[in-house]
Amino acid sequence: MQTDTEKTQAACAPPQRSRESEAVAEGSFRLARGMAAMTGSRLRSLIGRAAGPGVISFAVGLPAAELFPCGELADAAAGLLPAEPRSLQYAVPLAILKEQIVELMAARGVACRPEQVFITSGAQQAVDLVARLLLDPGGEVLIEETVYEGALMALQRYSPAVLALPTDARRGLDVEAAAARLSSGARPAFLYAIPSGHNPLGVSLGSDRRRALVALARAHRLPILEDDAYGFLSYDGPAAAPLRALDDRWVIYLGSFSKILAPALRAGWIVAAEELMPRLSALKHAVDLDTPAFSHHLIAAFLAGGGLARHVARLRREYASRRDAMLAALADHFPSGVSWNRPTGGLFIWVELPRGMDATLLLEGALATEGVAFTPGEAFAAAGGGHNRHCFRLCFSATPAEQIDDGIRRLGRAVAAHLA
Amino acid sequence: MQTDTEKTQAACAPPQRSRESEAVAEGSFRLARGMAAMTGSRLRSLIGRAAGPGVISFAVGLPAAELFPCGELADAAAGLLPAEPRSLQYAVPLAILKEQIVELMAARGVACRPEQVFITSGAQQAVDLVARLLLDPGGEVLIEETVYEGALMALQRYSPAVLALPTDARRGLDVEAAAARLSSGARPAFLYAIPSGHNPLGVSLGSDRRRALVALARAHRLPILEDDAYGFLSYDGPAAAPLRALDDRWVIYLGSFSKILAPALRAGWIVAAEELMPRLSALKHAVDLDTPAFSHHLIAAFLAGGGLARHVARLRREYASRRDAMLAALADHFPSGVSWNRPTGGLFIWVELPRGMDATLLLEGALATEGVAFTPGEAFAAAGGGHNRHCFRLCFSATPAEQIDDGIRRLGRAVAAHLA
Repeated sequence: MQTDTEKTQAACAPPQRSRESEAVAEGSFRLARGMAAMTGSRLRSLIGRAAGPGVISFAVGLPAAELFPCGELADAAAGLLPAEPRSLQYAVPLAILKEQIVELMAARGVACRPEQVFITSGAQQAVDLVARLLLDPGGEVLIEETVYEGALMALQRYSPAVLALPTDARRGLDVEAAAARLSSGARPAFLYAIPSGHNPLGVSLGSDRRRALVALARAHRLPILEDDAYGFLSYDGPAAAPLRALDDRWVIYLGSFSKILAPALRAGWIVAAEELMPRLSALKHAVDLDTPAFSHHLIAAFLAGGGLARHVARLRREYASRRDAMLAALADHFPSGVSWNRPTGGLFIWVELPRGMDATLLLEGALATEGVAFTPGEAFAAAGGGHNRHCFRLCFSATPAEQIDDGIRRLGRAVAAHLA
Repeated sequence: MQTDTEKTQAACAPPQRSRESEAVAEGSFRLARGMAAMTGSRLRSLIGRAAGPGVISFAVGLPAAELFPCGELADAAAGLLPAEPRSLQYAVPLAILKEQIVELMAARGVACRPEQVFITSGAQQAVDLVARLLLDPGGEVLIEETVYEGALMALQRYSPAVLALPTDARRGLDVEAAAARLSSGARPAFLYAIPSGHNPLGVSLGSDRRRALVALARAHRLPILEDDAYGFLSYDGPAAAPLRALDDRWVIYLGSFSKILAPALRAGWIVAAEELMPRLSALKHAVDLDTPAFSHHLIAAFLAGGGLARHVARLRREYASRRDAMLAALADHFPSGVSWNRPTGGLFIWVELPRGMDATLLLEGALATEGVAFTPGEAFAAAGGGHNRHCFRLCFSATPAEQIDDGIRRLGRAVAAHLA
C-alpha cells in the first residue's frame, strides 16, 4: 500500500500556503512518511453528506440506536458507581468480563479459557494490535479483494504487501485461490477474514470452505484473523460455528460488543494462544495504556443480569425483518439487470449493477435527486482496483422497516435513471 | 531503541517448547520484529507485587479512588441514557465536549478554538497518534533522560533514535543542552516534555526555562509535545501557564481527564494546529475507529453541571495535604544521606539515595521485610542507562494522609537497612 510519493519526507503546510512551497514554508510541519497523503477523499465527503437532514441512509454499518438497552445500562450504571468507585480507576482488565466472554464464546460453539481472552477497545483495535504483533513493515498479508475498509486502514499503517484473494457475495472467500498463493511461495504474516455476515458482502462461508480454510492454516502455519463482529447476528436458524471452533491455535478470533450491545462502549476481545497475551498487553499499554474500564464494568453488570441473550434474540428478530423488508423492496423497485444476494447474517446486502456502471457516480445522483445513500464498492477494494466499482453495499439494520421501502423505492428510481 | 536481536525475525513458541527450537517448532508463531523481546520484566513483576494485600504502595501514579465524584457521574448516566440513546452509537467526536475543553484550556491560560481540539482515549493515545504523525521509523526524538515510561513505550513502537537530554528533580529539563543538540545538527521530529508536575520527577519548569524552550522551538521549527496531564494539579498558588500559552503553533498540547476526573473514562485531548486534525482523525480511525463516546457524553454532562472546578479545587486541597504529609514523614523517618524534592504540582516526589545504591534491590527488600512499595528510577531511564538507578519515585496521591506516615516509616527502615 506504499506509494512512491509516500516514500519522500512530506510536509504539511498551514492552510493559507500553497502545497508547492510547503517544504520550505515558515511554519510548516515535517510529517512522517505517508501522512501528507492522508486527507479526506471525495468518497468520504459524499458519505458525510448521507448524514444530512432528509436523507435516508443505508450507507453506514450502524446498529439500530432505538434498540439499545438504555434502561438496563442506566440501571447498571446507577448500581455500579456508588458501590464501585474502582470502576473509574486505572485497572487490569476485568476478570469477570473475561469469564463472561468465555461463556459467550461457548454459546458461539468455541471452547476457551479466560487466560486466552484479551479485552480491547473494540475489534478495530484488535486488528491493529494483532497486525502489529505479526506483521513486519512491508510484509505480506492475505485478504479478500473486497473487504471491510477499517481493516484496510489498520493494516495500511504497516505498509504491507497486500495479496488480494478473489471473493464474491454468493460463496465468499475463494479458499482454493488462497491455497494456490501459498503453494506458489507466498509467506503472509496472516490471513484476515470475516467468515460470518461479511462486511461488506453480507455472505457467510459454508462449512466446506470453513474446513478447507482451517486445514490450509494448519498446513502452512498461517494465522487466520477471524473477525466475528457479526457472528451472533444470524437470521435463518443456527449460525455456522466460527473457524476458531475448528482450530484453537492458528485461528485468532476477534469479537465485539459493538453490534450486539453498543458501539460507544468500545469493547471487543481477542481469543488467542495464551503465550501471545503478555505481548498484546505490552502493545496495548503503548497505544492507549488501558481499556475504557468503566464501560467494561457496565457491560459486565449488564451480562451478569442475563440481559444479553434476550437482547441478541430481539436484535435477530428485528434485523431479520429489516433484511426481509429490504429484499422485498429491492424485488419491487429495482430495475432488471441489477442483482443482489440474500444474507443469512450480519447487517449488509451487496448489490451489483451491470458491469461498466459506476456506483460512486450513482451515489452522487441518488443523493442529489432522491436523498438516499449507500456505500459504493470502491470503498472496499483491497488492491485499489476497480473490480467492484459497479457494486454497492446496503446496510439494513439502521433503518426501521417502514422507511426501508421508501428508501429503496427512491434508490430504485436513481438506479433506473443511471442505467437509462 | 532497536537492538540487534530485534532486527532478526523472531518466533514465539508455545509454552511447552524450548525457546531454542522455536523457529522450527511445529505450532510456533512468526512474530514481527521486536515482538519476541516484548515480555514481562523483573521490575514489572516486582511492581505487580506492590498490589498485594497488606502492602502500602507508593508505586503507581494513581488518583485517589475515594475522591472520584461517583454520585455526580451516576446522576449524569441516569440522566443521559434514557434521553440520549445516541450516546451509545458510533459517532463523530462530541462537539459540546470540544467546546468545554476550550473553556478548560482558557482556565489554564491557553486560548484555542474547538477546531484545534482533538479528543483521544487518554493522553497515552495522544502521544501514540502524534508520534505516528511526525516520526519516521528510526527518526530522532528529543526526550529527557528521566521520563514517563508510558511515553517511552509509545515511542518505542517507531524505533526512534532517542536523543536524551539532562534533567533533574530541582529545575527540570536542561534547555541549554537541547539548544546545543539542535545547534550541532540534530533534526528531531519533536521534543516530548512534561513541564508541569513532571512524571516521575515531580518538578515544574520555571518561567525562564519555559520561555527559552518555546524560543528554541520557534527558532528550529521543532514541535514540542507538551504533556500537561498534571497541569491542573498545582498546590502552591497559581500554576505556571503551559508552553502552549506561549506559542500556538509549535507547541502541541496533550491534556487528560485521567488525573482530574477518572482514568477509566479514557478521555484526553490534543490542542494543535487545525490542519493536523484530518490526519489525526484518519490515524485514530485506523487504530480504534472511534472514541469511547459514552464516557465522553458522561464527562460532558458532568462538566455542564459545573462539577469540574469544584472537584479540581478539592483534589488540590487533598493532594497538597498528602504531599505535605509525605514530606513531613520523609523528614521524620528517612536516614541522612538521602534527599528528595518538594514538588509544587503533580503526584510525585523524587528520592535520591547515595550514588552507587540500587533502588530496585531496595524495592525487593522493602516489599519482603516491610510491605511497602515505590517505583525504582530505572523504570524511567530513556536511554536505558543506569544514571538514575539510585533514585526512586513516590506517589503521594493514592494513599490517605494517615497511612502515609506509616508507609514512609516502614520504607525509612528498609532504606536504613539498605544503606547499612
